[in-house]
Amino acid sequence: MQHLQDMLRSQPNQPEAMDTIRRCIEASFDCAQACTACADACLSEPMVADLAYCIRLDLDCADLCIATGRIVSRLTKPNRSLMECALNACADACRACAEECETHAGTHAHCKVCAEVCRRCEQACQDLLATMP
Amino acid sequence: MQHLQDMLRSQPNQPEAMDTIRRCIEASFDCAQACTACADACLSEPMVADLAYCIRLDLDCADLCIATGRIVSRLTKPNRSLMECALNACADACRACAEECETHAGTHAHCKVCAEVCRRCEQACQDLLATMP
Amino acid sequence: MQHLQDMLRSQPNQPEAMDTIRRCIEASFDCAQACTACADACLSEPMVADLAYCIRLDLDCADLCIATGRIVSRLTKPNRSLMECALNACADACRACAEECETHAGTHAHCKVCAEVCRRCEQACQDLLATMP
Amino acid sequence: MQHLQDMLRSQPNQPEAMDTIRRCIEASFDCAQACTACADACLSEPMVADLAYCIRLDLDCADLCIATGRIVSRLTKPNRSLMECALNACADACRACAEECETHAGTHAHCKVCAEVCRRCEQACQDLLATMP
Repeated sequence: MQHLQDMLRSQPNQPEAMDTIRRCIEASFDCAQACTACADACLSEPMVADLAYCIRLDLDCADLCIATGRIVSRLTKPNRSLMECALNACADACRACAEECETHAGTHAHCKVCAEVCRRCEQACQDLLATMP
Repeated sequence: MQHLQDMLRSQPNQPEAMDTIRRCIEASFDCAQACTACADACLSEPMVADLAYCIRLDLDCADLCIATGRIVSRLTKPNRSLMECALNACADACRACAEECETHAGTHAHCKVCAEVCRRCEQACQDLLATMP
Repeated sequence: MQHLQDMLRSQPNQPEAMDTIRRCIEASFDCAQACTACADACLSEPMVADLAYCIRLDLDCADLCIATGRIVSRLTKPNRSLMECALNACADACRACAEECETHAGTHAHCKVCAEVCRRCEQACQDLLATMP
Repeated sequence: MQHLQDMLRSQPNQPEAMDTIRRCIEASFDCAQACTACADACLSEPMVADLAYCIRLDLDCADLCIATGRIVSRLTKPNRSLMECALNACADACRACAEECETHAGTHAHCKVCAEVCRRCEQACQDLLATMP
């Protein structure tokens, strides 16, 4: 996201862990896109019936990534517990989706890409959680 | 939601706690609407500057309620841990938003309505969590 | 939505077509839920490969219904053109999704329910558009 | 979005205007983030009461950008009319939000960044519309 550095610098509230926040925002929007695209690609595969659980996880993960990406984008006085729960839910969804996509990564390139993006987002959420003592 | 009973009965997957699921879906979509409307109403109040934290929580809560309402609406083989994390995040957001809205409930009727809807959704999420042993 | 009447009455901005707005909000949140559930139910059908286009439309329609339901829920000085475009997009998605679901309504009860909810939402969007001279 | 090129190449459906699609997806997810962050930044400004219309447009635009970004990310047999309506609604929201943000661009750097991202997304939607004869 080209604009993100400038956008974050322009915010009235400047938290300490700005770099970790930036990576988490980027990773969660990327992951929402990747999971949406992977679900759709699975839907067009001849073996779609075998990919139902993968599609289901893709859709759940996309929903949590968008919610979390929006919540982390808000720097106005966050509610600590809400933020932690959202990051935990997002990290958990990314892990579950990555694990499932990894089992199809040899067959479907979209699952391979999706798994990598999910793992990056899982890590970015955990990194942000680690800055919240 | 008039259609919800029929929709749930028509699903190929029929889980045990269908009634608790139905109440959780209704409560989360209701809460997404209420929080969206409350944020907007706060924005039009003369004292909007005093309501910034309330608006922030409304927006976060709306995002988590939509994500959770969609996740719970999917009955195809759910991922247990993902479902629990989403319900926990949603319940936590509803509690935080209700607590804040309750402090304005005497002044702003929209905050009073929003707090009630948030409390119902918090309870509905916890009820669904209680069915997952 | 039990709370909606009270929530709308509590808003600082009271537009003329409040009843039409209320029906449009309810219909769009209902439709977002119905389309999400129908997509998931299709995914669990043995003939899922034949339902790929139906699932695709369900997902698109759910996304536009949530966006539109949130936009219509905001009563603070709306942008007229944006509101019209959103309502048009939502009505169009509901019509397309209803048409596709109607072709499966004899086989799949979830498609039958979804088609009905989509038609109600299509009508509710058009009714609201008709109040905007 | 680093992953997007690989993700698009991995899709079973390869439409002609893939480059234009890629730019539209990136622009709409970027714009959803920028509008969410700008709304939140406005909320923390001392003059928030003067920014109510800007916040309202930011929130509407973010919702339409996410819906459109997800719809364009799905390459499985799209519904032509639905796609056009969604792109039109997104372009219109981006234009409206950019126009409002531009009036605050001298005072608020976040409005300046947001206006630029909105203009890029408006253009990207129009470019994709132009490929649909």
